[in-house]
Amino acid sequence: MTQNATFTYTEILSQPEAWAEALDVVQRLRSDLERLLAADVAQVLFTGCGSTYYLSLAAAALFQALTGRPARAVPGGELALNPETVLTASKTLLVAVSRSGLTSETVRAVEQFKAKGRGPVIAITNYGDQPLAGMADLALVIPKGQEQSIAQTRSFASMYVAATALSALAAGRADLLQAMAALPPAGERLIARYQESARNLGENLSCDRFYFLGSGIRRGLACEANLKMKEMTLTHSEPFHFLEFRHGPMSMVTESTVLVGLVSQKNFGPEQAVLSEMQARGGTILALGESGVEVAFESGIPESVRSVLYLPILQLMAFYRALAKGLNPDRPNNLTAVVKMDFA
Amino acid sequence: MTQNATFTYTEILSQPEAWAEALDVVQRLRSDLERLLAADVAQVLFTGCGSTYYLSLAAAALFQALTGRPARAVPGGELALNPETVLTASKTLLVAVSRSGLTSETVRAVEQFKAKGRGPVIAITNYGDQPLAGMADLALVIPKGQEQSIAQTRSFASMYVAATALSALAAGRADLLQAMAALPPAGERLIARYQESARNLGENLSCDRFYFLGSGIRRGLACEANLKMKEMTLTHSEPFHFLEFRHGPMSMVTESTVLVGLVSQKNFGPEQAVLSEMQARGGTILALGESGVEVAFESGIPESVRSVLYLPILQLMAFYRALAKGLNPDRPNNLTAVVKMDFA
Repeated sequence: MTQNATFTYTEILSQPEAWAEALDVVQRLRSDLERLLAADVAQVLFTGCGSTYYLSLAAAALFQALTGRPARAVPGGELALNPETVLTASKTLLVAVSRSGLTSETVRAVEQFKAKGRGPVIAITNYGDQPLAGMADLALVIPKGQEQSIAQTRSFASMYVAATALSALAAGRADLLQAMAALPPAGERLIARYQESARNLGENLSCDRFYFLGSGIRRGLACEANLKMKEMTLTHSEPFHFLEFRHGPMSMVTESTVLVGLVSQKNFGPEQAVLSEMQARGGTILALGESGVEVAFESGIPESVRSVLYLPILQLMAFYRALAKGLNPDRPNNLTAVVKMDFA
Repeated sequence: MTQNATFTYTEILSQPEAWAEALDVVQRLRSDLERLLAADVAQVLFTGCGSTYYLSLAAAALFQALTGRPARAVPGGELALNPETVLTASKTLLVAVSRSGLTSETVRAVEQFKAKGRGPVIAITNYGDQPLAGMADLALVIPKGQEQSIAQTRSFASMYVAATALSALAAGRADLLQAMAALPPAGERLIARYQESARNLGENLSCDRFYFLGSGIRRGLACEANLKMKEMTLTHSEPFHFLEFRHGPMSMVTESTVLVGLVSQKNFGPEQAVLSEMQARGGTILALGESGVEVAFESGIPESVRSVLYLPILQLMAFYRALAKGLNPDRPNNLTAVVKMDFA
């Protein structure tokens, strides 16, 4: 391990503790949240930038699947510059997600949203003393998700757990909230069991192209795993919906390609079929899911609320690959922890 | 030009004729369309696979921007396997797009949608005698968009023009429909003026990575231009929203990177700012838009309905790059014209 690459590793490994805090925060604010979630709005919109946009994609799909209410995701920059493509004259509940609470496009989008009286705002963030939390009607603040690394790992996962709990709460599913209490120990077991596998695949530099396949409520998580690989390791990687991969992108599969599948129980058959087809074309397969795959959670937690378990092993794979390439995973090329944009 | 690479070239160059037919089809079915578009539905959902999913993304953003009604896009495979992430108990108007009218996931999704009485269906396709057209309440069929090539060029653009006209019609914007009559001659002028530029950049094999940036109603078109580059040339390429590119993916920019910007008039400043920042990092910039950029439409057509003009030069750039790499653009690696999936 290079001398400086210490934060990322510690942050990945310690994340189950941050998940537990996220669950506590939601439980603590439960009645306030229930009041806001009961607001008469036409849609729920999740927004963020980069990792937190991907979190928004995952959260919106889950929110709609669990509640039956219309929910969608939009990048903060798009909400700021092209609001007409996602907002209507009806009220919207906005859930704005930002690790730092400072991201300029997200803050700008929330400012505009509030100034125009579009509807209530819930913030999810790791820093309660920054602009975003102060602007929201209610802020879910998870300090244990804070990080020194630039690439988000513990922060992402903790905010995603909060968004998952929020969705379960909005659906009135006390059973799911309760089941989520088993996530932190399941995460610890998973990391202990598969850290070596993550290292082995990450260190295999004969692979030069990674595709992350995830569908439904897992799609945004496939996007995030892809971004970790890009940011930390400067390796070519892309996310796709499982079946979409067959419509063009599979032309890029070679013997040095890794296909990472975030496999579901619900659509296990068609998802595995895509992976097998790509294996037949020479690609290396890494499937993650509850059981019957290379990285098996064996958690017993319901599918809708256990998805955070896809993250730690994929973060570790990127971390070890960065080291193997002689890169510092704490300080990726060209990046800064808070991306600012001058809107003046 | 290699011996077999004849279809793609002819199809790209002849597309303005197919755009004109698409406009005629919408005009001819205008009263039936107006009746369907007036249906009392909670949302409009566009669906397709691969290129036509990207078309759906572009069309949904435009439909919502012009009409103020909720509209979104979903891949056909996702609608078939994970409908709970996009459908609610309320009625939906489904617009299903497929070049062949045969795409298995889209056909399956429409079958399920109809069987469950989710709402009315409009099809957009190039083949009227295939399953999709027969299943729809109304089919917009554009035979002149038919192709012998596997990668969609003329077909995509013609169906996108139909979706654009459909959106203008739904918004009651006769002025926009009328303005669209100027698209075919504007497309012909554009091809004549910039074909050599497309060739020069396409043939420059010192570039090995392409990013396509597009926001708002142009986002889906950036995705499609990216897919053409992948399919025809097996070159690493990806699409991003303009501001999202700064949140992580820009770590990948090197001196051999090309940044293609689908620039708008509306957000010209922030979009150009992102391109300039990437140029400062060593990337090569190609910006397309109405004026003040490398590829200037100079069309005089309103921004909301002229976006098809982004396509021909980018298709030509991919075509010439395929030839320069010794590939056959008519028959891309690993692909077939109709992608089928066994759902049994």
